[in-house]
Amino acid sequence: MRDHFEIRDGDVAGRIGELTVPRAGVTVETPALLPVVNPNIVTVSPARLESEFDAEILITNSYIIKTNDHLREEALEVGLHEMLDFDGAIMTDSGSFQLAEYGDIDVTTNQILQFQRDIGTDIATPVDIPTPPDVSRERAERELEVTEQALRDAEDAETGEMLVNAPVQGSTYPDLRERAGRTADATDLDVFPVGAVVPLMNAYRYDDMVDAVAAAKRGLGADAPVHLFGAGHPMMFALAVALGCDLFDSAAYALYARDGRYLTVHGTEHLDELDYFPCSCAVCSEYSPKELRETEGEEREQLLAEHNLHVSFAEIRRVKQAIRAGELLELVEERARSHPAMLDGYRALLDHAEQLEREDPASKGSFFYLSSESARRPEVVRHHERLERLEAEGRVLLTEGGKASGDRFDASWRVVPPFGPFPRALSETYPLTAEVPERTDRAAYEMAAEGVARLVESHPETEFVLAHDGWPETALARVPDSVTAEPLGRVPSDD
Amino acid sequence: MRDHFEIRDGDVAGRIGELTVPRAGVTVETPALLPVVNPNIVTVSPARLESEFDAEILITNSYIIKTNDHLREEALEVGLHEMLDFDGAIMTDSGSFQLAEYGDIDVTTNQILQFQRDIGTDIATPVDIPTPPDVSRERAERELEVTEQALRDAEDAETGEMLVNAPVQGSTYPDLRERAGRTADATDLDVFPVGAVVPLMNAYRYDDMVDAVAAAKRGLGADAPVHLFGAGHPMMFALAVALGCDLFDSAAYALYARDGRYLTVHGTEHLDELDYFPCSCAVCSEYSPKELRETEGEEREQLLAEHNLHVSFAEIRRVKQAIRAGELLELVEERARSHPAMLDGYRALLDHAEQLEREDPASKGSFFYLSSESARRPEVVRHHERLERLEAEGRVLLTEGGKASGDRFDASWRVVPPFGPFPRALSETYPLTAEVPERTDRAAYEMAAEGVARLVESHPETEFVLAHDGWPETALARVPDSVTAEPLGRVPSDD
Ligand SMILES: [Mg+2]
Ligand SMILES: [Mg+2]
Ligand SMILES: [Zn+2]
Ligand SMILES: [Zn+2]
Repeated sequence: MRDHFEIRDGDVAGRIGELTVPRAGVTVETPALLPVVNPNIVTVSPARLESEFDAEILITNSYIIKTNDHLREEALEVGLHEMLDFDGAIMTDSGSFQLAEYGDIDVTTNQILQFQRDIGTDIATPVDIPTPPDVSRERAERELEVTEQALRDAEDAETGEMLVNAPVQGSTYPDLRERAGRTADATDLDVFPVGAVVPLMNAYRYDDMVDAVAAAKRGLGADAPVHLFGAGHPMMFALAVALGCDLFDSAAYALYARDGRYLTVHGTEHLDELDYFPCSCAVCSEYSPKELRETEGEEREQLLAEHNLHVSFAEIRRVKQAIRAGELLELVEERARSHPAMLDGYRALLDHAEQLEREDPASKGSFFYLSSESARRPEVVRHHERLERLEAEGRVLLTEGGKASGDRFDASWRVVPPFGPFPRALSETYPLTAEVPERTDRAAYEMAAEGVARLVESHPETEFVLAHDGWPETALARVPDSVTAEPLGRVPSDD
Repeated sequence: MRDHFEIRDGDVAGRIGELTVPRAGVTVETPALLPVVNPNIVTVSPARLESEFDAEILITNSYIIKTNDHLREEALEVGLHEMLDFDGAIMTDSGSFQLAEYGDIDVTTNQILQFQRDIGTDIATPVDIPTPPDVSRERAERELEVTEQALRDAEDAETGEMLVNAPVQGSTYPDLRERAGRTADATDLDVFPVGAVVPLMNAYRYDDMVDAVAAAKRGLGADAPVHLFGAGHPMMFALAVALGCDLFDSAAYALYARDGRYLTVHGTEHLDELDYFPCSCAVCSEYSPKELRETEGEEREQLLAEHNLHVSFAEIRRVKQAIRAGELLELVEERARSHPAMLDGYRALLDHAEQLEREDPASKGSFFYLSSESARRPEVVRHHERLERLEAEGRVLLTEGGKASGDRFDASWRVVPPFGPFPRALSETYPLTAEVPERTDRAAYEMAAEGVARLVESHPETEFVLAHDGWPETALARVPDSVTAEPLGRVPSDD
C-alpha cells in the first residue's frame, strides 16, 4: 500500500481516495480536477480557484517559469505558493512537450527535479517522452526506454518531501502501456500520469483512450493514484474514473473561454451558436447568451471561464456522489449518449468488464438496466462466474414465473434478464435486485440465455427446464439443447 | 392557426412557441415551466421567481383562494397580480381535484370561471374530472362526457380577454384520449392541459404517460398549446417536449424542498443521503450537503427550493437549446438513461415514430447514433419511406465501400447503418450526414437491411447487389433473397 494514497470508497474501478501531499501539508480528495494555471496569463486567480471553486490542487508548468527571468526569480525567491497565492497542493509539469518541441533535452532528470524542488513544487514531473498514438512499434519502444530511464533517474534523485510523478507512456500499444505501468509501479515514485492521450481525445478516439488506460491500469497496482494527463473535458470524467483514473487537469476551462467555447457534460458549444444556456451555474442564471456576447472581451472571457469551471467541478462532484451511491456505471451510461464516440468509449470499457469486475464492489445500491450495453456490465459477468459455484442438483426449474407447485422439481430458480438464473434465496442480493425496464431488449434475453448455458455447462449431471416468457429466437438459440425450454404457463406455478 | 400561439422552431414534435396572454399583456415563450405558488405558503416569492429565475408565468389554485376569506377578499380587491407581486402571466387551477375530493361539485362552470375572472386570472380552468389511470372503460367514458360538457359550458361563458384551459382526459384509454383531444381542439378554448397523468408519473409509468400524451396529441391540432398538467420533474421535460408538450407546472420544487428532497435531471435525491452536490448552481457551489444539513430549517428549505428551481429552469433552457440545434432526441437519449422506466418511456416514444415523423423537421444539425434505440428514430422511418420514391434502374450496387469501378453497375449507392441505401448525391443531406459509432450494433445493421428490403420491394424490376462489411446473420436474414449479398471487397471499387 502506498502510504500517501488511501482509497475510501469505490465503484467499478473508480474510487474516492485521499492523496496526502506532505510538502503542501494538505490532503487532496480524489477524483480531483487540477486547473492548469499559466503564470503568464491568469484567467481566474488561484485564490479564487481555492475559495470559490474549492480547488484543492492545481498544476502549472515549470518550463514556463524556468524560461522567464521574472517568473523564475520570483519563484525561486518566494516559492510557488506565495507567487500564485494558493494554499492547496501544486503540481508542476516538466515541460516535456516543450522540451521535445524545442529540442532542449540536454537537461538531466536530476536538474529538472531540482529546479521544481527549488521553486517549491509539491508534486514534480521528470522529463519523459510523450509518444503520440499510431507511431511505429520501434519508436514507441525506443521512446519508452528513455522514459523508463528517466523514472530510474528520478528514483535516485534527492527529492525530500516532494512527491514525484512517474509517467506511463507506450503510445497505442496495449502491451507497451501495460509494461510501462508495471515499470512505473515498481519504482518508489508517487503519482502515475498516463501520458500522451490528448491526441486521442482531440480526435474523439475515446475507445482507443479506454484501451490505453485499461492497459496502463493492468500494469499499475490498484493502490496507485493515476492522473489522466491533459484530460480536462467534463464529458469524459465519469468514463475515465470508471476505468480507475483519479486526477484530471484542465487547461480547457481557460483556453476555451478565450475563443468563446462553452463546456458542457455533453460536449463543447460555441457562445456564438447558443440561444439559451443549458446550465444552472451563477453565470448562466444571470446572463443570457446574447447578454454575455454583448459584454466586453475580457469580462466575457472571465465569465465563460467561470462557467467552464463550474461545470467541470460540478461533474467531479457528480462522479464522487455516483461512486458513493454505487451508481457510477449508471452515470457512464448517460454520458455515453453525449456523442457516438463516447458510445464507442463505453462499449470499449465494457470489453474490459472482466478486468473491471476484479475491483468492482460486490454490493451497491441498485443496478439499473439502461440500454443494451447494460447487459455487458461487470456485475453480469460476475453473476455468470458465480453460477458455476452454486449448487443445483436433480431436476431444476428455471422460470421467469412463480415457484413451481407440486413435486415435479427439486428446486425452482428465478430467471431475470440480463442475469439469467439464480436461486430464490439470492433475490434480495445485489445485483439481482436490479431495476429493469418492462420493455426487455434482445441483449438482455441473450445474456440471460448465456447464464443458463453457463449453469448447464458447470452442472452436467443436473436436469434443467426453462420456463420463459416469450424469449426471442436469438436468445433461445443460446440455450443448450439439453435444456427443455417451455413458454411460461406450461409449467404450473404457485402464482 | 390559433392566433395566440405561434410556433417559432421545432424538433421531433417539440417546439419553441410564443403564447400570447392578452389579459397579462405578456408573451410567454414555450416550453415554459409554471412554478406552482401556494398563496398560503410562499417558499420563493413570485417577485424572485420573476427576477432571479426569469419565470414568465406561474400557476396558483383558485380553490384555495376562494375558500380562504382573507385571500378571497384580497384577491377580489386588488387582483392576483398585485396580491402575488408578479407581472408575468398567471394561470389558475379550478381545484377540480379538491372539488372532487370534497364532493363540492354543485358549482357551475360559469361560476367557477367567473370567480377566476374576478380575481384577475389570465388563464382560467373549468372544473373537469381528472379520471385516474386503469379505471373501467365505462367510468372513463362517463367522466369524459362530464368534462366535455364542462368545455361546452366554458365556451359559452363570458370570459373576455381571459384565456381558458380545455383539459383533455380519458384515463389510460388511447382512443378516449384521442377523442378528448379532438373534442377540446374543436372548441374555441385556448390552452390544452393533458390531465390526470400525475399518478402515472408517480408510479414511474413513463411509457403509459407517453402513450396517453401521444393519443391526446393525435386528437389535438399541431397548433394547440399543450400543458402536461402536474408534470414538474426535470427528468422528463425533454421526453415530454419531444412528444409535443409546451407547458409544465412544478409544485415539486417547493414540496420536495419541504422534506429535504433534491431534484436532478437523473431523478430525486434526499439531502440526507448526499455526500456531494451533483450540480453547478449557486446553492450547490456555496454549500456542501453537510453544510446545508446544518443550516436552520426554514433557510434550508428555501435553499433547497432554490436549487430545485435552478435545476428545473436550466433543464427547460437545455431543452430549448436542443430544439434550436435540432438535438432534442439526442437529449432524450441521454435522459432515457436516468432510470429503466425512462428507457421504457423512450422506447414507447419510438413506438410513435411515424406520428412524430409528420412534425419532425426535414433538416437539422447532425443525427447522432447513440444507442440501439437510435435505429428506430423518426428520421430512419422517413428515410425508408423516401426509398420508395427514389429512382433506381437496371443493375444497382448498394455498398458500404467505395463507388464500383468499371461498367458492371448502372449505379453505385452508399449503404450506412441504420439508414440503409441511398444515392451518393444525398450523402450531404440530413440525416445521412449522421455521426455513427465505429462499433456498429446489430439494431443498426438490421435497420439498414430493412432499408434494403424496402427499396427492393418498391423497385421490383431492378437488380440489386449488396456489398456489406460483415453484417450479422440477423441483418442478412432481412435482406430479400433476390439481392446478391457479398462481403465487401468482392466487388471491385475505386477506393
Ligand atoms: Mg444504482
Ligand atoms: Mg445533432
Ligand atoms: Zn453555466
Ligand atoms: Zn444546485
